[in-house]
Amino acid sequence: MSASALRALAGAMLACAAVTASAWADPLPSWNDTAPKAAIINFVERVTQEGGADFVPAAERIAVFDNDGTLWAEQPLYFQFQFAVDRVAALAPQHPDWERLQPFKGILHGDINTVAASGEHGVLGILAATHAGISTAAFGEIVDGWLAGAQHPRFNRPYTELVYQPMLELLAYLRGHGFKTFIVSGGGIEFMRRFAERVYGIPPEQVIGSSGVVKFEATAEGSVQLVKETKVEFIDDGPGKPVGINRFIGRQPVFAFGNSDGDLQMLQYTAAGKGVRFVGLVHHTDGDREWAYDRSSHIGKLDKALDEARARNWTVVDMKTDWNTVFPTRQSTE
Amino acid sequence: MSASALRALAGAMLACAAVTASAWADPLPSWNDTAPKAAIINFVERVTQEGGADFVPAAERIAVFDNDGTLWAEQPLYFQFQFAVDRVAALAPQHPDWERLQPFKGILHGDINTVAASGEHGVLGILAATHAGISTAAFGEIVDGWLAGAQHPRFNRPYTELVYQPMLELLAYLRGHGFKTFIVSGGGIEFMRRFAERVYGIPPEQVIGSSGVVKFEATAEGSVQLVKETKVEFIDDGPGKPVGINRFIGRQPVFAFGNSDGDLQMLQYTAAGKGVRFVGLVHHTDGDREWAYDRSSHIGKLDKALDEARARNWTVVDMKTDWNTVFPTRQSTE
Repeated sequence: MSASALRALAGAMLACAAVTASAWADPLPSWNDTAPKAAIINFVERVTQEGGADFVPAAERIAVFDNDGTLWAEQPLYFQFQFAVDRVAALAPQHPDWERLQPFKGILHGDINTVAASGEHGVLGILAATHAGISTAAFGEIVDGWLAGAQHPRFNRPYTELVYQPMLELLAYLRGHGFKTFIVSGGGIEFMRRFAERVYGIPPEQVIGSSGVVKFEATAEGSVQLVKETKVEFIDDGPGKPVGINRFIGRQPVFAFGNSDGDLQMLQYTAAGKGVRFVGLVHHTDGDREWAYDRSSHIGKLDKALDEARARNWTVVDMKTDWNTVFPTRQSTE
Repeated sequence: MSASALRALAGAMLACAAVTASAWADPLPSWNDTAPKAAIINFVERVTQEGGADFVPAAERIAVFDNDGTLWAEQPLYFQFQFAVDRVAALAPQHPDWERLQPFKGILHGDINTVAASGEHGVLGILAATHAGISTAAFGEIVDGWLAGAQHPRFNRPYTELVYQPMLELLAYLRGHGFKTFIVSGGGIEFMRRFAERVYGIPPEQVIGSSGVVKFEATAEGSVQLVKETKVEFIDDGPGKPVGINRFIGRQPVFAFGNSDGDLQMLQYTAAGKGVRFVGLVHHTDGDREWAYDRSSHIGKLDKALDEARARNWTVVDMKTDWNTVFPTRQSTE
């Protein structure tokens, strides 16, 4: 037997062990034994049972997840917005005019409301100053540096530790059953791709998000770069989500999870597929361990989608009741 | 031992057999033993050797292929253009005005040159008439019907049989070594996705192409559709190719194959990555078995990219010399 054949056999024996172990272990230990967990497991067992009426071939097992408020927290500010705020502060010394210019002035003085008050023009100005005019490679390094150093104001942890442990387990459970997991988020695609693989196990090519126009530049010497321009190219939110899914994936998902009205069309698009489908919402009901908000929140507003979920019997996760753990155990840093 | 464990063991034994067989069989039998085949195998062995200086982790083994002229033929007309021509003929009875309107009139009377003569406005008019104003689902069915029925005028075979057998082997060889294979083509994304999985083994989410604007529509009753609009959204050609790679994949490829100047920037972008890279061109040199064309061709013009390939020692496949087979063996249809 050749060395590579031996390796294949060893791999198979490990696979056997994993199969046996997985038949015993709870794949979703952070989920309480309430309705959402049962619905997830029931769905996965039905669509993966070969020969069953609801069987879905592996190639069609597309699962899509919103990011902000679904895979990680989004309060008190969308984390990427906090990144932009911190970036404005870091760049301010090079822009003395920002002391007189809204919404920059407001941001520099801790008055975030000036951004909303400045309207679309103001928001685009912040985006242009913090997310454009540099190469994708340089932007990626800036994001890496911010993720490594920034701490969430309430939990004093890196933002990438404020992911939901139950959702990490769900992603792994789905992938273990042949699903391909995608992020479909209103967040910036170049921002999310810097941590999605390490944190969620989702590679860059399975991250769909909002984006600005990018331009290719090559020199005669063979160096190349992609430059992020100020123009917005695609808003992956609301009706943009099924459009993004069609553009990037080209298949209707069989499984979708969101948490806000911005996810409604993605959920409708998933639910409209033929055959059994799983459609879920995270409902933020836990002010002690996380936050409690829905219909009147400025961030992650959940109103129409909550009504539609109840009318159509979609799965609504009550964070307080259905999750026994919210965030991953703090990693020792000593 | 449980039934699933037995299945895993059986799978492993099959995997062993495959590993042993692959150590003996030539993975690229349609490639002659000339320089390109050696360059491909040398590259794959270097980047997949764990612990080697050139090792590339599996997640980063991104391989990109142009489609027209690289994976399938493109003469005497881009196949998708022939689809549009046939579609104009099929729709003509509903459009009596086309008998007086160029370039429709020219197409209906077999004078394809009127399309080029009609300029961008004319080309967009043809695209609008043949590729827009319907749902993505309806368009897909029209493409399926055309692919099933249309025959290439020279070879009298379905267009999907005019794929290059050596490239099918190359795609499978790369995937067998942990590469993820993508199409990055100027062709329409919704068009290519109808056959890429069946013909190339490339799933829809790994097909990148040009696209029009798509709009999401939902009814109160829960039915949804995505409608193809007439506006062009993205041209995945020339400098658009690295932009499309960045948008859809988010990683710089380590392996790229094209055949024309429209692929040049994709090849430059791939070559610019750090570490060992494979950059290849198909040179159409075989007028007997396929076609011979390069610098002066209106379709698949290969001029600047050929110069750059020679200057930078990229691999140039001489179809006549390097491939012992061009198209797959005709399948018996009796």
